[in-house]
Amino acid sequence: MSAVSRATPDTLPAWQTLRTHAEQLKSIHLKQLFGDGGQRWEHFSRHVAGVTLDVSKQRWDEDTLEHLLALAQEAGVPAAIKALLSGKRVNTSEDRPALHTALRLPADASLELDGEDVVAAVHASLAEMEVLVARLHAGQWRGATGKPIRDVVNLGVGGSDLGPLMVTHALMDFRPQDIHRVEVHFASTMDGSQLADYLSRLNPETTLFVLSSKSFTTIDTLSNANTARDWLVGRLAEHGSSPVHAELVVRQHFIGVSACPEKMCEWGIAPEHQLRFWEWVGGRYSLWGTIGLPIALVVGMDNFRALLAGAHSMDEHFASAELMGNMPVLLALAGIWNVNFLDIRAHSILPYDGRLEHFAAYLEQLEMESNGKSVTRHGESVTYSTCPVLWGQLGPNAQHAFYQLLHQGTQPVACDFIAPLKRYDDVEDADTRAHLKAQHRLALSNCFAQSRVLMLGDDAIEDDGPRPEHKRYRGNQPSTTLLLDELTPTTLGALIALYEHKVFVQAVIWDINPFDQWGVELGKKIAGETQKLLEHEGDISRTDDSTRHLIEAFWAAENNV
Amino acid sequence: MSAVSRATPDTLPAWQTLRTHAEQLKSIHLKQLFGDGGQRWEHFSRHVAGVTLDVSKQRWDEDTLEHLLALAQEAGVPAAIKALLSGKRVNTSEDRPALHTALRLPADASLELDGEDVVAAVHASLAEMEVLVARLHAGQWRGATGKPIRDVVNLGVGGSDLGPLMVTHALMDFRPQDIHRVEVHFASTMDGSQLADYLSRLNPETTLFVLSSKSFTTIDTLSNANTARDWLVGRLAEHGSSPVHAELVVRQHFIGVSACPEKMCEWGIAPEHQLRFWEWVGGRYSLWGTIGLPIALVVGMDNFRALLAGAHSMDEHFASAELMGNMPVLLALAGIWNVNFLDIRAHSILPYDGRLEHFAAYLEQLEMESNGKSVTRHGESVTYSTCPVLWGQLGPNAQHAFYQLLHQGTQPVACDFIAPLKRYDDVEDADTRAHLKAQHRLALSNCFAQSRVLMLGDDAIEDDGPRPEHKRYRGNQPSTTLLLDELTPTTLGALIALYEHKVFVQAVIWDINPFDQWGVELGKKIAGETQKLLEHEGDISRTDDSTRHLIEAFWAAENNV
Repeated sequence: MSAVSRATPDTLPAWQTLRTHAEQLKSIHLKQLFGDGGQRWEHFSRHVAGVTLDVSKQRWDEDTLEHLLALAQEAGVPAAIKALLSGKRVNTSEDRPALHTALRLPADASLELDGEDVVAAVHASLAEMEVLVARLHAGQWRGATGKPIRDVVNLGVGGSDLGPLMVTHALMDFRPQDIHRVEVHFASTMDGSQLADYLSRLNPETTLFVLSSKSFTTIDTLSNANTARDWLVGRLAEHGSSPVHAELVVRQHFIGVSACPEKMCEWGIAPEHQLRFWEWVGGRYSLWGTIGLPIALVVGMDNFRALLAGAHSMDEHFASAELMGNMPVLLALAGIWNVNFLDIRAHSILPYDGRLEHFAAYLEQLEMESNGKSVTRHGESVTYSTCPVLWGQLGPNAQHAFYQLLHQGTQPVACDFIAPLKRYDDVEDADTRAHLKAQHRLALSNCFAQSRVLMLGDDAIEDDGPRPEHKRYRGNQPSTTLLLDELTPTTLGALIALYEHKVFVQAVIWDINPFDQWGVELGKKIAGETQKLLEHEGDISRTDDSTRHLIEAFWAAENNV
Repeated sequence: MSAVSRATPDTLPAWQTLRTHAEQLKSIHLKQLFGDGGQRWEHFSRHVAGVTLDVSKQRWDEDTLEHLLALAQEAGVPAAIKALLSGKRVNTSEDRPALHTALRLPADASLELDGEDVVAAVHASLAEMEVLVARLHAGQWRGATGKPIRDVVNLGVGGSDLGPLMVTHALMDFRPQDIHRVEVHFASTMDGSQLADYLSRLNPETTLFVLSSKSFTTIDTLSNANTARDWLVGRLAEHGSSPVHAELVVRQHFIGVSACPEKMCEWGIAPEHQLRFWEWVGGRYSLWGTIGLPIALVVGMDNFRALLAGAHSMDEHFASAELMGNMPVLLALAGIWNVNFLDIRAHSILPYDGRLEHFAAYLEQLEMESNGKSVTRHGESVTYSTCPVLWGQLGPNAQHAFYQLLHQGTQPVACDFIAPLKRYDDVEDADTRAHLKAQHRLALSNCFAQSRVLMLGDDAIEDDGPRPEHKRYRGNQPSTTLLLDELTPTTLGALIALYEHKVFVQAVIWDINPFDQWGVELGKKIAGETQKLLEHEGDISRTDDSTRHLIEAFWAAENNV
C-alpha cells in the first residue's frame, strides 16, 4: 500500500471540503433533495452482477458524491484495490496478503504468491472438497458401524460458522434432489448448549462432525469436538457385539478443515479427511474455500461453484470499474459520509427475504471485526469515527420490533434494505405458488414503503391533516436499497463480495487494517487465567472486587448441588 | 401518572447535578474507580428472585448513584410504579392500562379494572389454555383425517413471535417426558419463506397452526395463515377416498389467539379453539398469557406457571423495594447514566448460554419499540436522547464476531453480560456431563474475563511490556453482569420481568409513553398504497424518483419470467 499517503484522512483536502459541505447540507431535509427534481435514480443507482444498488435515498447530493470520490482518490483507493487483488501484503500487522478473492478465481486464471501459483492450489483444494462431498452425497461415507452418514454437524465459530450458516440458509431452495440426503447442522457456542441438543437427538452411528478452525486451536470448537468425540466413542463402544475402536470412530466421524495440518494430525483427523486452506485467508473471508464444505454439502458443488463465480463477477467489477461507477466504492462512500460527516453511528441491515435471516449476523462480524479499529496502519490513534455499530433483523419482522426507534427515536440510523425482485417461480403447486408470490409482493411493498417513509416522514402521506405530536414522523433517515434480480448462488456470491469490498474501501479511507483482529487476543488470555481461578488455581485476591465476587458466586452455586 | 411533574426531566435539579457530576467523572478511568478501593460489589450488587445483578463495572461512583436515585425520585418513579401495577391508564396515548403484571398474579390475588376482577379472568383464560394443551399432550387432538397432531406451527410476528420463540428455546431442557410429543415451530416473516419451508416438510394431516395476533388484522400473520389454510385444504381434499370438507380442516387445524374474538370467528376459527386476551396487554408484553401457548406446548403447564411465578416475584420486589435496593430501578439508572450523561448510544446484550440465543432479539423489541420515542407524554419534543441502539448475540460467538469493536473501536458501548451459575447437573451420562460442565466453566470464565478486560484494558494483564499501538486496549467500557442461580422457568420469568420494569423506569424518567408504538402505523399505510402501485393500480408518477424506479425494476423482473 505504498501509494497511500501518511497524511491522516482528516487532513486530506477532500475531507476538509466535505466538512464544510456537510455543514451546508445538514439543514436540508432528504425530502428536499428529492423535491428539487433532478434525476436522483440516474445519478445514484448502479446494476452489476445481478445486483441493483440504489443510494439515492442517502442524505447527499451530486456535489457530495464528487467530494467523496475525491476523498477516495486522495486516500489512494485505486492503488489499494490493485494491491489487494494482486496479493500485496495488505494485512500489514500480520505481514501477509488477504487473498480471499483468489479463492474465486477461475481455473484458467493465474496469481503468483512467493513463487507459487495460488490458483492451482485453490482448485486442487476444491477438487479435494468435491471428493468428500461426492462420497457423502452418494451415501458411500459410512460410520464406524458401517451405516451411511445422514447428519453432519459443523463445529466452528466466527468465520468458521457464520458464513456457512448464513449461506446454507439463504440457498435452502437450491438443494439438489437426486442425492443421498445429508442434513447439515451447526454447533458453535463454547458452552455446549447447541451440541448437547444435537447429542440428545442424533444417532451416533450416522453422524459426522466437521471440525473447522483456521488455527485448529480455537478453544470453543475444540471443546465441542472433545465432547462430541467422547460421546461417539462411548456410544459406539456400547453398540452391538464387537467393540468399535476409538481410532476408527475418530477416523470415520471427523473431517478437519484448517490452515494447520500438523494440528489436525495431532488431534487424530485422518490425513485423507483433512481439508486445508491458507494463512492468507482471513477467518471472516473464508466461506469461499474449504470452510464452505457445509455449503457444498447442502447445495452441491455446482451451486457452490456458482457462488464463487458470482463473487468473482463482483471482483472483476471492483477491479476494473472507475470509482464513480464502482458499486463497492459507492456503498463505502455512503457509509463514510454518514459516519464521519453526519455523525450517524448506527447502521441497520434489513433483508426482506426470510432466507437471509442470518445475513445481518454475518455482516456484524464482517464489518465490526474488520473495521472496529482505532489505530492507523502507521500506529497512530485515529481522531475520527471508524466502524459504526451494525445490527439487523429480517425487515418485515423488525417492522414489528425496532422500526419504532428508526421512525420516532432520537438516534439517527442508516439502513440497508435488501430484497430479491423475483421469487417463488419454481413452487410446484399452482395455488401455493400464487399465494407465495402474493406474499413476496407484500414483502417488496413493505420494503419500498419503509425506505420511503424513513425518507419523507409525514410527507409520505398526501392529505396530512393536523395530528398530535406522537403521531408525527420526522423522516430524514437515510437508506440504501439493494435488489437482487433473484436470490441465487450467483447473486448471493456477488452480494457478499460487494460488502467485503465495501469494508475494504472504508478501511483504506480510515487508514486502518481491516484484516487483523488484535482486539480479541487479550480476552482469550484473561479467560484462561480466569478459568484457573474458577478451578481454584491461583490467587483470587489479586483480581478486582467485582470479578472476585462473581467467581465466589460460582463457587457458592457449585457447592450447593 | 398524576404524580409526575410536567417539568421535562432535563430541567429537574438532579439532572443538573448529574450533568456537572458527569463532567468531573468523565476524565476518570473505570479502573481508577476500582483502584480507589472501596466495596464496589457491596454497593453495586443485588440478589433478587434467583438473579444477581452486578453494576459495579459501570462508570459511576456512589455519588452518581445517589444523584440518579434523586432523579428517579424527582421524576416520580415511585408513584409511577404504583400507577402501573394498580392498573392506572399509564398508556396515555391509547388511554388504557398496561397490565402485563396482572397476567402473573396468583389466583388468590385480586385486581379490579372497570369493576371487573382481572385476576379471575386471567386464570380462566389460563384454564382454557390448559385444556387445549392437555388435549394435544394426550394425543387426543386429531386432524381432519383422524390422525393425532404432531407438529404445531405458530403463525405470529413481533410480540406474538419473539417472546414464545425466545422462551421455548431458553427452556428446551424442561420438556416434559411422558407426553405425546408435539414439535413446535415458528413462522413469522410475511414473505412466506419460513412457512414455505415447513409446507415442504410437514404432513398436513398432523399439522396444526396457531394463529396469534392481538388485533387479528396483522397482515404478515394473516397472509401466512391464508397460505397455510389453502395448502391444508388442497392437500387434505386430495387425500384418501372420502373428501374432507374445508370447514372441518379449518376447524381441526387452527387455534386462534387474539384480543378480538369477532375477527377470529370471521376468519373461521371455531369458538372452542379460540384463546383470548385483552386490550390492556401490549403485544411485546404478551408472552405471559395465551400468546404463550407455544411455550406451554413445549414445557408443559406446570413450567409455564413457574415462569409466571418467577416474573411475579420480580413484580413484588419492584413494587415493594426502596429505590436504592430496587433491581429494575438500578438497571434503569445505569442506562440513563450511560445514555444521557456519558453519551453512550449503543447497548449490547451478551448471554453466555446458548439457550438464550434469541434473548437479544427479544430485548431489541422490548427496549426499542417501547422507548424509541421522541415525544413526551405531554406532546413535546424531547431535547435529550432516549433509547440507545440495542443489539446482541451469544457472548462466546460475538467474541469471534464484533467484540473487536468493543475492545478497540471508536464507539463507546455499554454491555450486559448474562449467564447461569449452575448448569448440566441433569445430564444422565457421567462422561458427557463432565465434559459439558467443563464447557460451562469455560463459558463463565470467558464471561467474567471479558467484562474485566473491557473495564481495565491493558491493565488486565500484569507484566505488560511495551507493545505496538494496535495491540493496546483502552478499556473503560462499562458493563453490567447478570447471573441466574440457574436457568429455570422461574429465574427466566424473573429476568424478563426485570427488563420489562427497567424499560418502564427509563420511560418514566424520559417522560415518554413506553406502551404505544405509533411509529409503525404510517409504514403500514404506505405499504398498502405501494402494493397497489406494484399491482398496477394507481398513479406511479406521483411517487418519488427512487420508489418509482424500484417498482419499475420489479415490473421488469416480473415480465422476464
